[in-house]
Amino acid sequence: MIRVTRKYRFSASHRLHATGLSDAENSLLYGKCNNPYGHGHNYALEVTLSGQVDARTGMVCDIGALDQFVEREVLERFGHQNLNTLAEFGRLVPTTENLCSEIYGILKTFSPAHVEQIRMEETMMNSFEFAGGAELRH
Amino acid sequence: MIRVTRKYRFSASHRLHATGLSDAENSLLYGKCNNPYGHGHNYALEVTLSGQVDARTGMVCDIGALDQFVEREVLERFGHQNLNTLAEFGRLVPTTENLCSEIYGILKTFSPAHVEQIRMEETMMNSFEFAGGAELRH
Amino acid sequence: MIRVTRKYRFSASHRLHATGLSDAENSLLYGKCNNPYGHGHNYALEVTLSGQVDARTGMVCDIGALDQFVEREVLERFGHQNLNTLAEFGRLVPTTENLCSEIYGILKTFSPAHVEQIRMEETMMNSFEFAGGAELRH
Amino acid sequence: MIRVTRKYRFSASHRLHATGLSDAENSLLYGKCNNPYGHGHNYALEVTLSGQVDARTGMVCDIGALDQFVEREVLERFGHQNLNTLAEFGRLVPTTENLCSEIYGILKTFSPAHVEQIRMEETMMNSFEFAGGAELRH
Amino acid sequence: MIRVTRKYRFSASHRLHATGLSDAENSLLYGKCNNPYGHGHNYALEVTLSGQVDARTGMVCDIGALDQFVEREVLERFGHQNLNTLAEFGRLVPTTENLCSEIYGILKTFSPAHVEQIRMEETMMNSFEFAGGAELRH
Amino acid sequence: MIRVTRKYRFSASHRLHATGLSDAENSLLYGKCNNPYGHGHNYALEVTLSGQVDARTGMVCDIGALDQFVEREVLERFGHQNLNTLAEFGRLVPTTENLCSEIYGILKTFSPAHVEQIRMEETMMNSFEFAGGAELRH
Repeated sequence: MIRVTRKYRFSASHRLHATGLSDAENSLLYGKCNNPYGHGHNYALEVTLSGQVDARTGMVCDIGALDQFVEREVLERFGHQNLNTLAEFGRLVPTTENLCSEIYGILKTFSPAHVEQIRMEETMMNSFEFAGGAELRH
Repeated sequence: MIRVTRKYRFSASHRLHATGLSDAENSLLYGKCNNPYGHGHNYALEVTLSGQVDARTGMVCDIGALDQFVEREVLERFGHQNLNTLAEFGRLVPTTENLCSEIYGILKTFSPAHVEQIRMEETMMNSFEFAGGAELRH
Repeated sequence: MIRVTRKYRFSASHRLHATGLSDAENSLLYGKCNNPYGHGHNYALEVTLSGQVDARTGMVCDIGALDQFVEREVLERFGHQNLNTLAEFGRLVPTTENLCSEIYGILKTFSPAHVEQIRMEETMMNSFEFAGGAELRH
Repeated sequence: MIRVTRKYRFSASHRLHATGLSDAENSLLYGKCNNPYGHGHNYALEVTLSGQVDARTGMVCDIGALDQFVEREVLERFGHQNLNTLAEFGRLVPTTENLCSEIYGILKTFSPAHVEQIRMEETMMNSFEFAGGAELRH
Repeated sequence: MIRVTRKYRFSASHRLHATGLSDAENSLLYGKCNNPYGHGHNYALEVTLSGQVDARTGMVCDIGALDQFVEREVLERFGHQNLNTLAEFGRLVPTTENLCSEIYGILKTFSPAHVEQIRMEETMMNSFEFAGGAELRH
Repeated sequence: MIRVTRKYRFSASHRLHATGLSDAENSLLYGKCNNPYGHGHNYALEVTLSGQVDARTGMVCDIGALDQFVEREVLERFGHQNLNTLAEFGRLVPTTENLCSEIYGILKTFSPAHVEQIRMEETMMNSFEFAGGAELRH
């Protein structure tokens, strides 16, 4: 059993503002991240696959297949976007916790190998891991 | 003569769109960076001071003074902002080239030491340096 | 269930010398780290919280609360210090293993979220993780 | 219980080509990595030990002993080599998955401490972890 | 005047062996890099353009044009190759100094902007810069 | 003409305290770096050589010779030391500016190639470059 991790990068913007909170509560909770016009990040996404090494190829899975899946299903969807304008974040606050959960939900449907975990870096100081279990409903 | 470089980080969002170009030209030139709702980056800003080492203190300048200046004049102004909404970018496209030029113009007014150059990283792949000379007019 | 990791940095110095060993044994075991006047490191501290995402805020916990706790309880105590002069290391050798254990003991008392693990980097080559269980007694 | 991770680096070259596949299949599967003359990487190897902290020394194990073991058994053997020419890869394709498995098999014989896991970075985008269990047979 | 730097990565292998030196001299000079079967690296290539910011676009040059040029003229040529088998290194030793010089010679022909300098990292410990002047003849 | 940069790392401790200043002035100027017992850093030292590529070897200079020189003259002298206890810093404050100047003075005596510049990183936020000219006298 081996774990293979591949790293992708994309840029997006967001504004943190919860509709269930007052303006004062939003400002207190999210601080500058609550600025009305938003700000952005260079996100790093690490996808971890786990499985047996295929004795014939010496690989857990064809990484090219993962690249195509992530490009089409994740980078095309979230890259160079304002996350607040996407359907996923109509009701969910586009925190990196929630972004992580959404992306994990997508990656679970990758069939050539088992996606064990994803990890996202929002900045050099903050990172988030989502592993197994049920993703958030919305 | 020694050069001292100090690194700061901030996040912001922008949309690249030049008013002097047609929509088709904007789309062709800026690609995904022309998306109407914008996207964002974690910018790194490196400020390079140059000067003699003060024989009494062993330092070129009190770095605390630079920190306060950058915090007040740069990070407060550009951090966690949508650059397109700022006065500086009313007519200028908020490319990192232009952002770099604006920030260099501010840092030239730092008086305790000579700011020789600034360098900005937009992503791990792109960086920009602005050294001396006249900044852009607007 | 999601894991959120936040990274802090501080500098400190230490000398590795065990009172239960002879000078020759100390020198052999710790090598240059046994130099009588000490040396130092830029430590990186990563704190990993785990929990459910709060549906209202989209966050596991208010990171600002963690920042204040770590600033007050860890960085103020260990940052810019000679570890050998601190009470914690009166009898314990200030290896990064023991420093890690002490800091984990402090972080366990953070109440707004569960601290699952801490990780410390001593240099680019060495890192240490402490997760759950009982910390060292002294 | 604490985990200690130490990082080593070495350079090597390889060509990915499976003898059980046709030339066309090899080209399709491995892409440019199937180029007949090979290419190479700067590999990073992280070795993670786990154990109790020795109360006398404040360490899990003497890292100098690990350094000597890794230098002699791993870096001397794989560093600055064309992996395809080594006995280990007479029948195994020298993917980083298989290299990881071979190196884990060697490190399991390190006796002063328990090697819990190894992690290898092939490039900034790809990494591999091998933890416990039986390594590949050949 | 602003400088824009863009970073690319590719992997290749090489063997250092000078035909004008005896085997013993080669072994002494290049050490393990003289191993007959070669080894490899993940090279990073940084291309620095300099010029005025175009007032209309806010950019020094269309980076997409540079990407296409580097992809076609550099990465396709040197990436995933054994450098010793290329025509450029028929007589030149494929050190990173010489590789740097070859690549600079190619990039000088990029016409949309002035290539002021290139920098290559061979490993985390070694980097090379080639700026202006005449490249090596062969 | 090509520039070759090689990176070394060492750890040391220091206390910033100028004998020509009062205790209050020292505390104000150096802040926590004035703590009586000192603190420490992982320093990175980058040495930049410049010269013609030797047509026979493809190299500017034998890097092994530089490694031996730096090991013997710099790393042995400053690594794992409390800088305040060294003769160089009897009267000079051991700021990284002054450390940089001292190390440049040593590297100027390396004869196989021209040392054009050195750069030192004190932390991820601070770096210092010393290029040419006369070093500080003491």
